[in-house]
Amino acid sequence: MSSENLVLTVRCPDKPGITYAITGLLASVGGNIMESQQFNDAESGFFFVRIEAHVPGGKPTIEAAFAQLAANHDMTYEIAEANKPLRTLIMVTKDSHCLSDLLSKNREGRLPIDIVAVVGNHDTLKPLADFYGKRFIHIPIDAQTKPDAEAALLRLIEEEDIELVVLARYMQILSTDLCERLAGNVINIHHSFLPSFKGARPYQQAHSRGVKLIGATAHYVTADLDEGPIIEQDVVRVAHDDNEAELRAKGADVERQVLSRAVKWHAEHRILMNGHRTVIFA
Amino acid sequence: MSSENLVLTVRCPDKPGITYAITGLLASVGGNIMESQQFNDAESGFFFVRIEAHVPGGKPTIEAAFAQLAANHDMTYEIAEANKPLRTLIMVTKDSHCLSDLLSKNREGRLPIDIVAVVGNHDTLKPLADFYGKRFIHIPIDAQTKPDAEAALLRLIEEEDIELVVLARYMQILSTDLCERLAGNVINIHHSFLPSFKGARPYQQAHSRGVKLIGATAHYVTADLDEGPIIEQDVVRVAHDDNEAELRAKGADVERQVLSRAVKWHAEHRILMNGHRTVIFA
Amino acid sequence: MSSENLVLTVRCPDKPGITYAITGLLASVGGNIMESQQFNDAESGFFFVRIEAHVPGGKPTIEAAFAQLAANHDMTYEIAEANKPLRTLIMVTKDSHCLSDLLSKNREGRLPIDIVAVVGNHDTLKPLADFYGKRFIHIPIDAQTKPDAEAALLRLIEEEDIELVVLARYMQILSTDLCERLAGNVINIHHSFLPSFKGARPYQQAHSRGVKLIGATAHYVTADLDEGPIIEQDVVRVAHDDNEAELRAKGADVERQVLSRAVKWHAEHRILMNGHRTVIFA
Amino acid sequence: MSSENLVLTVRCPDKPGITYAITGLLASVGGNIMESQQFNDAESGFFFVRIEAHVPGGKPTIEAAFAQLAANHDMTYEIAEANKPLRTLIMVTKDSHCLSDLLSKNREGRLPIDIVAVVGNHDTLKPLADFYGKRFIHIPIDAQTKPDAEAALLRLIEEEDIELVVLARYMQILSTDLCERLAGNVINIHHSFLPSFKGARPYQQAHSRGVKLIGATAHYVTADLDEGPIIEQDVVRVAHDDNEAELRAKGADVERQVLSRAVKWHAEHRILMNGHRTVIFA
Repeated sequence: MSSENLVLTVRCPDKPGITYAITGLLASVGGNIMESQQFNDAESGFFFVRIEAHVPGGKPTIEAAFAQLAANHDMTYEIAEANKPLRTLIMVTKDSHCLSDLLSKNREGRLPIDIVAVVGNHDTLKPLADFYGKRFIHIPIDAQTKPDAEAALLRLIEEEDIELVVLARYMQILSTDLCERLAGNVINIHHSFLPSFKGARPYQQAHSRGVKLIGATAHYVTADLDEGPIIEQDVVRVAHDDNEAELRAKGADVERQVLSRAVKWHAEHRILMNGHRTVIFA
Repeated sequence: MSSENLVLTVRCPDKPGITYAITGLLASVGGNIMESQQFNDAESGFFFVRIEAHVPGGKPTIEAAFAQLAANHDMTYEIAEANKPLRTLIMVTKDSHCLSDLLSKNREGRLPIDIVAVVGNHDTLKPLADFYGKRFIHIPIDAQTKPDAEAALLRLIEEEDIELVVLARYMQILSTDLCERLAGNVINIHHSFLPSFKGARPYQQAHSRGVKLIGATAHYVTADLDEGPIIEQDVVRVAHDDNEAELRAKGADVERQVLSRAVKWHAEHRILMNGHRTVIFA
Repeated sequence: MSSENLVLTVRCPDKPGITYAITGLLASVGGNIMESQQFNDAESGFFFVRIEAHVPGGKPTIEAAFAQLAANHDMTYEIAEANKPLRTLIMVTKDSHCLSDLLSKNREGRLPIDIVAVVGNHDTLKPLADFYGKRFIHIPIDAQTKPDAEAALLRLIEEEDIELVVLARYMQILSTDLCERLAGNVINIHHSFLPSFKGARPYQQAHSRGVKLIGATAHYVTADLDEGPIIEQDVVRVAHDDNEAELRAKGADVERQVLSRAVKWHAEHRILMNGHRTVIFA
Repeated sequence: MSSENLVLTVRCPDKPGITYAITGLLASVGGNIMESQQFNDAESGFFFVRIEAHVPGGKPTIEAAFAQLAANHDMTYEIAEANKPLRTLIMVTKDSHCLSDLLSKNREGRLPIDIVAVVGNHDTLKPLADFYGKRFIHIPIDAQTKPDAEAALLRLIEEEDIELVVLARYMQILSTDLCERLAGNVINIHHSFLPSFKGARPYQQAHSRGVKLIGATAHYVTADLDEGPIIEQDVVRVAHDDNEAELRAKGADVERQVLSRAVKWHAEHRILMNGHRTVIFA
């Protein structure tokens, strides 16, 4: 794919003629739409569209005209190059299953992100990052050092032009300030089927309650812990003879699949925000 | 919904500007697009789109213009009124689970079809049709009477302007001639995960092979038995202690769900043909 | 099956030799074990077993000896005849999907219960009960009449020797007193994946939270609303374009499957209590 | 766990008293049963049981007595130490996803096998084996060298006392002779939902047929290609816009989960053969 393949994502108040206006702009420069999905939310009155198009000349060809169109229609929008992977930081603690899945899928060409570095508050997973040829940065963190650690993280994000941060079983809570600065660009995997079992030790909670399915939830991180917009969820069946350790083992497989799908959709610009909910054009 | 809510489905060779042309036509009459999905098949070079739109004046407003557009772009297309249920015939033998599901979902307002009649080659299910206030027509069939029975069926289809025939565990094979006359308008439920276990007694075959999941397949009927375009499939887990009767019981639940989903999608004009495969804009 | 096919379920503190003692008792009367499952819970120190056996002479042959054995080992146990369906009361309000599923599976021979009557606080579903030849009893209920209505229900349960009560989308809360009298014999279907979305309007809550899967939970009723021991759960995928009504429609299919499975397992004596959790020998 | 935790698996013609005889033997040496599952196949007339028990003194305590019991009842049986991992060989070609999953689950303590070596007919995956500290043996193979390559493999299996061979996307067909020598101890992952799409390029076949779910099948290898006893299967949903590459990517996730589950069950002695079918005491 060349840089002439673009992904347009648009959100605006719904009214007649919007699709026509957008497709008209594309047609006027000889663009060809490859894939398109649209959703009108009758409740919020908002219109959402994602268009993959081949545009001769690429992004510069339509940028100015699109800005004008967007202004006319009160649009929130993005024009991305389809084949330009997002510069991504993965944050971990000690559990390897999510990191391992992201790295191996990325190497197999199945996860279109550019993994710039792996940051760990422990250095347990450095060998795994090394194996996949990824820079590992150890930023220890405790109550005292948290402000400094977050400052270091922010510098890294700025210096490296990081566009996406993935919390791949990173067992630290980001500060409210950091959540707000990075809003919409941090994906977390929570090891329960939210809103069940928020907070700590969800598998213990699930075992204690005696549920028959356990799950995992990928969501955008907000200052309100475990309350961010949900991107993807899945579950797996458990039985009365599964103890908490077995719940963790079965859950691990769900966690990594859910997180990988969420990261892939974000990387492909398939997720639009609809208030506190997500529109997924998968 | 008024008759001003239309569903457009279009298939044509892909080239730039098609979406623009269609949305332009809609915009020119003050139409507002509620929902739209598009797919370009890189393999076949075909473009598929489904649009739900509110068009002041309804179908007559755009019919002539659309016919012109379609001619220009070599389109296969349909303009349907969103709230006009398809006139539907359900065909059964003795098993009630699929018929019961279609009738109850229809009554609950969850299956937008107009069930004109239920045809059975046995009269076992007449009381069920009676309960739901549906006409039941008993057309017995055997090797001798098959031509007459099919002729009676065809007359019924013509007299009643039937648009969709659903084979809800109808245990007879339609003749090649009938398959061809009704092509694209007959949905069958096969009680296996096709292409596994084609033909007779699929649950016996599945039990004998020792599979760990059994399934069901809804497909359009073609003269080539069990080879028609697949609309929907699903599976359920079985275990070593499930005998053939238990496979049938577990499978029955899958059959009716798969068939209901397929009928709903067809009724909502969400299925387009892509050669021998289906495009489902669900 | 004759009345010589028995189902034994036993719960007791774990110690060596219990299985040997039980199987010895069966062997001593020429019993043959058809199916057996056992679970030792390392956490609670309890032992659970379910045995299906053919015992010449049936229940009377082993009753006295088993009572002695149970006393020696501090067992909670039950000896049931495998082919004697539980006398069951189904309670409903206006929604038909769960009742319809239970009645049709029962008629198809796939749900081994004896449906003595259907009780509704509205009479909406009387025709459905009539169709399946089941007695329908209308017991209206409001804040004033609740004590009388529950008294009438209890009388019915006693007069008819009801062994199982199924709340098939019965939209009333049983009094604490009634919950305690019927403890372990009342199964409810809650239309969410508990513990998410307890209480009223779970589909509205689910829609508002933007979850990607919705579910249903069958549980034993306790005085603590929506907190009873979970028997079975399942989920279905939903998308951003499913409104609350569509969540209800998709959820309805899950509800009835989950409830039917729970009722079937209970009817087959496959559920044992492990404190607040269930052991399911499915 | 000490070596006093044993797993007994038994298959024999069904008759009364077998469980009593086995549990009596265990009781006579002070054994305590931790977990037990039993299945009587009414069709074949065979009885299957798996018992996990703590036996003071371990295997030597019961070996002789059990041999006698087995002779009396025409039993096929195995007595394994629960915590003694099977010596396992993993065979690969170039695809890493299954190998990566087995190695990482093994390292995380979630797959109780002893991975003695990884054998590849290409050396592509040597770095992955190296990373996990596993010996990698490159045994190239072509039509000419196949007999020599298989001889080398057999020598390795004998020298290293290999008990289990896992074909983790090993793209070579074992000779009939090798299949027969290793019968019951070689697990393969086939990248389709067997019996659909046997043979080469199943994802291409699936894409061409337009199925709505794709799957994977773990089975024991027999001389009859893709016809061996099925251990485990699972599926994932695909859509009209998934091309063959996307089917492969989605399928890869299913393959590795299915293979891991099958290997885990085999390693825990949870699989018994019932003719051409498997009994899984999971």
